[in-house]
Amino acid sequence: MFIQLDLQSKEPLYEQLKNQIVEGIARGRLKPGDRLPAVRTLAEDLGINLHTVRKAFQELQQENFLLIHRQKGVVINPEGIPEADAAYMEILKENLRPFVAHSLCRGVDMNDFLNMTKQLFAEYTQKEGEN
Amino acid sequence: MFIQLDLQSKEPLYEQLKNQIVEGIARGRLKPGDRLPAVRTLAEDLGINLHTVRKAFQELQQENFLLIHRQKGVVINPEGIPEADAAYMEILKENLRPFVAHSLCRGVDMNDFLNMTKQLFAEYTQKEGEN
Repeated sequence: MFIQLDLQSKEPLYEQLKNQIVEGIARGRLKPGDRLPAVRTLAEDLGINLHTVRKAFQELQQENFLLIHRQKGVVINPEGIPEADAAYMEILKENLRPFVAHSLCRGVDMNDFLNMTKQLFAEYTQKEGEN
Repeated sequence: MFIQLDLQSKEPLYEQLKNQIVEGIARGRLKPGDRLPAVRTLAEDLGINLHTVRKAFQELQQENFLLIHRQKGVVINPEGIPEADAAYMEILKENLRPFVAHSLCRGVDMNDFLNMTKQLFAEYTQKEGEN
């Protein structure tokens, strides 16, 4: 798989793993119904603890990104990822709040912040191989 | 002080405390040179552990938001918060990345995301009492 973890990072490994799976879905590399490696296999491949992989998978299941099936294993939610609702947007706003506050304190121009966000959207939505 | 912590939140208390101080600076409620309460006082007022407050203050000092002075106590960096540089912008982009990826998976429109960001900037930059 395409997952690469940064063992030096302050960000917990299970968060990194979660984010990379979500990014894989956003980029279209992982599609609804695609199977992920088993917990044990992925843990061995990445050289991390079983529990770290399990925690990432469980949280992604709670957030409806994954289905963990006793027989079929771990798959990207075959019904697709649920659409954002008002509650999701409210949480997103609260999550973005500290980054905006931080940026303002450091004199970041709003347009620079917005352009950076647009770049990120562009990165994910351009087809693979285009960059 | 204006700080209110959510003891039910999944977000660690020291992170909440850090964010609220940074938001106070972004809103202009806290200005360079302003004194914060002593660690012990703030911990008692908020009903949290001394170490939680100390950790928040220490990290904010590392990020140049605060100065911790043996005699004068804890003050908002009197020289102002350092301006964002290229390294800051790069870290900011990587921090925003998972939110963009998540939002894309959930079908959030880029313009809705950008408008939400603009609203947050507006919240912080409008004068107190205007809303």
